[in-house]
Amino acid sequence: MSIATKSKYSPGILSLLPIFYVTWSDSVLSPSEIKIIRKRIQDLDFLTFSDKRQLVKWLNPAQPPSPEEFKEWIQELKKHAPEFDENEKLGLSEMGLKIAQSSIGYRQDEVWKSPKTQQALQEIEEALGIRSEISKTLLETKLQPGKSTSEISNKGSFDTTKMQAILDGEHGELINRVKKLLRDPAFSYEILRDKADQRKRVSEQVQYLADQGASTYAFPEKYGGKGAVAKSIAVFEAVSYHDQSLLIKFGVQFGLFGGAIYGLGTERHFEKYLNDMMTFKLPGCFAMTETGHGSNVRDLETTATYNHSTGLITVHSPVYDAGKEYIGNAMDSRMAAVFAQLIVNGKNEGVHALMVPLRDRHHNLLPGVKVLDCGYKMGLNGVDNGRIWFDQVTIPKENLLNKYGDIDEDGNYISPIENPAKRFFTMLGALVAGRVSVGIAGNTGAKSALSIAVKYALKRRQFSANDNEKETLIMDYPSHQKRLIPRIAKTYALNFALHNLQALYAKQYGTGEMREVETLAAGLKSYATWHCTDTVQEAREACGGKGYLQENRLTDLKADTDIFTTFEGDNTVLLQLVAKSLMSEFRDNFNDGGYMAIIRFLADRFSTSLTELNPITIRNTNAEHLLDKDFHISAFNYRVNKLTITVGQRMRNYLKRRITPYQAYLRCQIHMQEMAEAYVEKVILDSFYATIERTDDEGCRAALTKLCQLFALNTIQDHKGWYLENDYMTGSKTKALRRVVNKLIQELRPEVLNLVTAFNIPDELLGAKIVES
Amino acid sequence: MSIATKSKYSPGILSLLPIFYVTWSDSVLSPSEIKIIRKRIQDLDFLTFSDKRQLVKWLNPAQPPSPEEFKEWIQELKKHAPEFDENEKLGLSEMGLKIAQSSIGYRQDEVWKSPKTQQALQEIEEALGIRSEISKTLLETKLQPGKSTSEISNKGSFDTTKMQAILDGEHGELINRVKKLLRDPAFSYEILRDKADQRKRVSEQVQYLADQGASTYAFPEKYGGKGAVAKSIAVFEAVSYHDQSLLIKFGVQFGLFGGAIYGLGTERHFEKYLNDMMTFKLPGCFAMTETGHGSNVRDLETTATYNHSTGLITVHSPVYDAGKEYIGNAMDSRMAAVFAQLIVNGKNEGVHALMVPLRDRHHNLLPGVKVLDCGYKMGLNGVDNGRIWFDQVTIPKENLLNKYGDIDEDGNYISPIENPAKRFFTMLGALVAGRVSVGIAGNTGAKSALSIAVKYALKRRQFSANDNEKETLIMDYPSHQKRLIPRIAKTYALNFALHNLQALYAKQYGTGEMREVETLAAGLKSYATWHCTDTVQEAREACGGKGYLQENRLTDLKADTDIFTTFEGDNTVLLQLVAKSLMSEFRDNFNDGGYMAIIRFLADRFSTSLTELNPITIRNTNAEHLLDKDFHISAFNYRVNKLTITVGQRMRNYLKRRITPYQAYLRCQIHMQEMAEAYVEKVILDSFYATIERTDDEGCRAALTKLCQLFALNTIQDHKGWYLENDYMTGSKTKALRRVVNKLIQELRPEVLNLVTAFNIPDELLGAKIVES
Repeated sequence: MSIATKSKYSPGILSLLPIFYVTWSDSVLSPSEIKIIRKRIQDLDFLTFSDKRQLVKWLNPAQPPSPEEFKEWIQELKKHAPEFDENEKLGLSEMGLKIAQSSIGYRQDEVWKSPKTQQALQEIEEALGIRSEISKTLLETKLQPGKSTSEISNKGSFDTTKMQAILDGEHGELINRVKKLLRDPAFSYEILRDKADQRKRVSEQVQYLADQGASTYAFPEKYGGKGAVAKSIAVFEAVSYHDQSLLIKFGVQFGLFGGAIYGLGTERHFEKYLNDMMTFKLPGCFAMTETGHGSNVRDLETTATYNHSTGLITVHSPVYDAGKEYIGNAMDSRMAAVFAQLIVNGKNEGVHALMVPLRDRHHNLLPGVKVLDCGYKMGLNGVDNGRIWFDQVTIPKENLLNKYGDIDEDGNYISPIENPAKRFFTMLGALVAGRVSVGIAGNTGAKSALSIAVKYALKRRQFSANDNEKETLIMDYPSHQKRLIPRIAKTYALNFALHNLQALYAKQYGTGEMREVETLAAGLKSYATWHCTDTVQEAREACGGKGYLQENRLTDLKADTDIFTTFEGDNTVLLQLVAKSLMSEFRDNFNDGGYMAIIRFLADRFSTSLTELNPITIRNTNAEHLLDKDFHISAFNYRVNKLTITVGQRMRNYLKRRITPYQAYLRCQIHMQEMAEAYVEKVILDSFYATIERTDDEGCRAALTKLCQLFALNTIQDHKGWYLENDYMTGSKTKALRRVVNKLIQELRPEVLNLVTAFNIPDELLGAKIVES
Repeated sequence: MSIATKSKYSPGILSLLPIFYVTWSDSVLSPSEIKIIRKRIQDLDFLTFSDKRQLVKWLNPAQPPSPEEFKEWIQELKKHAPEFDENEKLGLSEMGLKIAQSSIGYRQDEVWKSPKTQQALQEIEEALGIRSEISKTLLETKLQPGKSTSEISNKGSFDTTKMQAILDGEHGELINRVKKLLRDPAFSYEILRDKADQRKRVSEQVQYLADQGASTYAFPEKYGGKGAVAKSIAVFEAVSYHDQSLLIKFGVQFGLFGGAIYGLGTERHFEKYLNDMMTFKLPGCFAMTETGHGSNVRDLETTATYNHSTGLITVHSPVYDAGKEYIGNAMDSRMAAVFAQLIVNGKNEGVHALMVPLRDRHHNLLPGVKVLDCGYKMGLNGVDNGRIWFDQVTIPKENLLNKYGDIDEDGNYISPIENPAKRFFTMLGALVAGRVSVGIAGNTGAKSALSIAVKYALKRRQFSANDNEKETLIMDYPSHQKRLIPRIAKTYALNFALHNLQALYAKQYGTGEMREVETLAAGLKSYATWHCTDTVQEAREACGGKGYLQENRLTDLKADTDIFTTFEGDNTVLLQLVAKSLMSEFRDNFNDGGYMAIIRFLADRFSTSLTELNPITIRNTNAEHLLDKDFHISAFNYRVNKLTITVGQRMRNYLKRRITPYQAYLRCQIHMQEMAEAYVEKVILDSFYATIERTDDEGCRAALTKLCQLFALNTIQDHKGWYLENDYMTGSKTKALRRVVNKLIQELRPEVLNLVTAFNIPDELLGAKIVES
C-alpha cells in the first residue's frame, strides 16, 4: 500500500464513497437517510469544509448525482478493487477507509488510521441500516430484487418480476423508485385519530415528496420542472400505493392547483408561481366546487367583476351557497385558484379561474376571506378540506389565468376561443389529468385490498371435512375464490386500460384535441373507482373481523377511497358525459345545439339494422369457442352497438310524440348509463387483448390470457340477462359459460399468490398486520 | 277559594303534580329529565322530607308510577278542574301552586303565596323545556303526535302515522317510548375521535338504559325482569335507530352475556347473576370467538378441565390462537361467559359455557387472566373489544352453565341431551336472538340511510334543461330514483319478514324446537345485513360529498354497520347453514350422518320433475299479469325448487363418480348459496303479502301493494338471467317486466317522502345535519 492509487476525489470523500454508492444505488435517498447522513457528516472532523459541501450536494434528492457522476463513483471504486482480497469481508466503512488511505499513499495522516475515524464512519453505516460484512463483489454485482413471499403449493406458473414489469408499464422504474422512497420511516403508517395530528404528518410528507422533486414532472424545465407529464401520473400511481391522504393532498397541490396555473395561466403566472408551487413554498388550492354547485360547474355563483377604472377584479360570493366547498388544502393554502363567473363591462363571460391570495406570510386570513374547516370526514382526514367565502375581495387584473380568456388594455374581454361553450369545455380540460389519476388510484385501491385478502386467505383455515383432517384454507372454498379471483382479473384488465389512457393523455396533452381522452377518462374513472369501492368492501368481508381492525388497513382503504366515486366528477354524471359523447361525433356542434343535435345525429346514423345474428353461434357451447377472443370482442361490441341504437330509437320516438328533448333525455337516462358502461367495458377488453399481443414472456402471456378470458366471460355473465333477452345467446350457452368461468377460476387458484405478488406492494405500503411477512 | 278541595296528597306534592303528570305522560322519563328534577327538588324548602322521598320514588324509570297511581294523579288533577277559568292560560307551575293552595284552604301558609316558591317551580318547568302557557284542557286531551316533515308536491297518498304503526308492528308503543327516551340530550351525538372518550360516553348511556329498565325484558319477573322476550328485541330495534356502538354494547351485555346466563345456566346462576347483570352492576362479556376459530365454534381450543379431587375447573388457553378474540365489553367486564371444551375424566365432552371472573371489584385483572385491547376498528369504537387469554384459571364447578351439560356429585359428566351434536346445536341456539336482532338492526341501518338520502334528494337541485328553468331536483332524475326507490321497497319487505321472525322466535322460545327459527334467522340476518351495507353505500354516494362528512351520519352508519355482515355469524357461512337445513327435513339425522345423509335424502325426494311450464305464461307480457301476486309467488317458488333439485342432482352425480361427500359439497357451494338466497327471498315475499292481507287502511294498503310489487319484480329482474336460462320467461316478458318496474318506480316517486317519514326517525336519532328540519 505504499504506492498511492491516484484519485480525483479527496480522501475524505473517498472514505464515504462506498456508503454513498450503496445508499444511492437504488436511485432513492429517503428523507430519513438524508437526515442521518447530513447530521453525521457535520460532526466528522476529518472532512474538510469543501468535502462537506460536496457531500451535502450529493444529498439533494431533487438533484441527485447525475448518471455520469454515478459512473465515476463506480470507476473510482473499481479502481481500488485489486487492493482487496477476494475473500476479505469488509463493511462499507472499512472499505471507504482503505480506499482513502490508499489514495494518499505515503503521505498518510494519522487521522486515517485512528480508530475514532473508523468508528465515526461505522456509525453512519449502522444508522443507515446497511452495516453488514460484504465482500468486494459488491463492486461487481447488482443488487437482487427483494425476496417474494413464498407459500407452499402456491408457486404458480409465471415469473412475478416479469409480470410486475408488465403491470407497471413504461414508467415502472420511476414507480418503483417512488415506492422505495415511501418505505422510508418518514412515511410509515401511524394511527392518528385527531385530524390536526394527521394533517400535520401528511403536510410534512408532502414536503418530503416536494424536496425529492416528485412534484416537478408535469411542469417545464424552464421553471424547475421535468417536462414529462405522463411521468407525473406515474408518480401519482406510485403514491397511491400508500396513504390516500398523502396522495390527495399531493394531488391537490401539484395536480389541481399546479395544473390550474400551468393549464389555464400564461408566462406571467408560470414565472411568478410555478417554482414556489412545486417546492410547496406556496401551498395552494383548487377552488371550483361550491355548496350549491358541484357537478354543474357552469352555474357556479361566485363572481369576478372587472373594474376598468381601477384595473382590479372583485371576487365575491353573493350568497351562502356560493361558498367554495370541500376545498382540499384550504386550511394550509396561501393562494387559491378560484373559479368564478367573469364579468367584464357588465357582461358575464362564463366561468374563469383567478389567482386569489387567501392568507399572508404569517398565515393570517386576508381581508374579506372567510375559511371554515369541513371537519371530520369518513376518511382522508389528513387532508384539510375547508369552505371559503369571498366578500368583495379585490385582486389585480393580472391574476386572471388568461390562457383562454383575457381582458385587454382597453378593458374588453378577449378570447382565442370564440364559442363560449367550447371555451368552457376547454378550460374544464384541466380536470382530465385528475380523472386519469383518480382512476389509477382507484385501481390501486383494489390491488391493495386484494393483496391483503388473498394473503390472508392463504393463511386462514376454517372447518374441515372431519376431525382427522386439517381445516380447509379459506382460499380453497369456491365461494371465497369467486369473491376474489374475478376481481383480480378485473383489476388486471383495468390496469392496462388505465395505462393506455395515461399514454394517450400524454400524447394529446397540449394539442387542444382532447375529446377522446376526456370521454375515456370519464368512463374509466367511474368504472375503476366503483370497482375499488366494491373490491375493498368484498376484501373487508373476506377477512372477517380481522378486516374490521384498523391495524389491517382495509378500514382506512375503505374510508379513504370511498369518495373516489364522487370527487373529480360524480360517477353517475360522468357516465352521462360518456353517453353524450358517444352519441355525437360532433361534440362542438352538440354543445351548442343541445339535445336536438343528438337526435338529428342519431336519426341519420342508425337507420340500418345490425348484422343478422348467426343461429349457430348463439347456440355454440363449445369451450374453445367460449374462450375465444373473437367471441369476447364480438359480444362486447354487440352490446355497445345495440344499446346505442336502441337509445337512439327511443329518443326519436319520444320526440315524435312531442316530448321535450330534456324530458326525452331524462327518460333514457338509465339506458344511456348502461350504454356508457358497455362502452367502457369494450375499451378495457380491447386494451387487455392488445397487452397480451405484445407480451413475449410465455408464462406471463398464458396467465394474462386466462385473466382476460375470465374478465370477458365474467362480464358477459354479469349481463347474461341482457344477452338472453336480446337472443344473442341461448340458455344452454349461458349455462356452458358459467361452467367455463368456474373452470377458469379454478385454474387461476394456484396463481393467486403470484398474481398479487406481481402488484409488488411492500409491507410498509400495504400496512396490514395480518399479512406482514 | 276558601273551601279546601280535599286531597290524599300533601300540598308540596300537589304543587309538582302537573309537572310530573306531563313529564310522565309519554311513559318516558329520560336521564336528563330525572337529573334536572331530582336536583331541583332537593333545593325546594317548601317540600317536606317525606314529600321529597315520594317524589324521588316517582323518578325511578325502572319502577315508573303504576297505572293505578297515574290514574290517581289524573283524578286529582281533574278534581281541581272546576277551579280554573276555561280561558285562563296558566303554566304547569302556576297550576300546581293553585292546586296546592286550594287543598289547604283556609290553613294557607305564606309559603304557598311567596313569589320565591312560584319561581322555583317555574324554573323546573323551564329546565324541562315544558314551559308554555297551557289551558286546563291539558287535563282533558291527549298529546298529539309530533308534526311530520312536509314538502310541497310530496304529499303522497297515505297517512304516515298509520303506516308507521304498520311498520312498527305489535311492539310499536314500546319502540316509540324508547325512541322518545333516546331523544334526550344524554344520548345526543358527539363526534368523539378518541376511543377512550367514546367508550366512556357509551358506557354511561348503557347505564342510563339499564336505569330505565330497558335491559330487563328478556328475563323472568322473579329476578327483576319483565318476562317478555319479543319485547326485548323491540327495545333492541328502537335502540338500533340510534348510535350503533350503544346498540352493540347494550346487546353484548344484556343480550349475549345475559342471554348466556339465562339460556345456558340454571337457577343457581339466575339467583346469583341475573339482577346484577340487568342493572349493569356486573358488566360481562360473551367469550366465544377465538383468534383461530370464528365461524367454526365446534373446534374452539380453550379447555375447561374438571378435577374431581378439588371440585374445581381449570380454564386454559393452550396456544396463542386459542385466545378469545374481538370480545365486546372485554375491557369493562368483571365476568365472562367463556366457551371452552369441557374435559371431564379425561374425556372431551364438547363446547360448554362457564362463568369465569375476569377482574376484582377494583377492576384489577385476576391472576392468570390476560386482556388486550383490540384497538381501533372501522367503526363501533364506542365498544371496548378485547382479546382474552387464560393461564390455568380455576373456578368452582358451580360456574359451569349447566342447563345442557353438568358434572354430578361423583364427578361424572351428565346431560339431558345424549347426542353430542344435538347438544352442541342446542347450546348454539343461544345465538339465535342475536341473529334476529342484528337482522333487524341491519334493516334499521337501511332505513336511516334512506331517510337521509331521500330527504337530501328532495332539497338538492343540480342541472337544468336550460338557463331559464330552475335546476332539477335530484330526486327527479330516473337514475337517482332507481338508486333509492327499489331499496325502499326492499326495506319495507324486510321489515315485515323480520317482525314475523321475531314473533316466531318468541313463540318457539324455550320450546326446544327452534329449527325453523334458526334457519330463518340465519337467512334473514344475511340478507338484511347485506342489504344494509349496500344501501348505506348507495345513500352515501347519492348524497355526494355531503354524504362523506361525518356530521351527516352516513359515514358512521357505514363504519358501524359494516361488521354486521360478519359478526353473529359470517353471512356466507350462515347461507350455507340455511342451505343445509333446506336440504334436510331430518336435521338431527343430518348432523350425525354428515353429507351422505343429505344425499340419501335428496335422492329420495327429488325423483319427480317439476310441473311442466305453461307455454302461454312464459310469454305473457300483460302488465296485469306481471303485477299479479300469483305470478310473483310462483316465480319465487319456482326458483327455490329448481335450485334445490339441481343441487341435489349435482350432488348425486358427484357421488356416483366417487367424489368424496366433502368435495361434492365444496363443488356445490356457490349453487347452494344461491338456493339459500332464493329461499330467503321467497320468505320475505310471502310475509309481505301476508302483511298486505291484514292491512285495513286503504291508502296504506295501496302503497304497500306497489312496494311489494316493486320488490317482487325487481328481485325477479335481478335474476332475469337465471329465469331466461331456465325458460321460465321469454325475452319479451323480461323486457316488459323492466317497463313495469320503471313505471312502479315512477308511481312511487310522489310517495318517497311519506315512505321515509313512516320510518319515524326523529332528527336527534337520524343525526344528519343536511336534513335537519
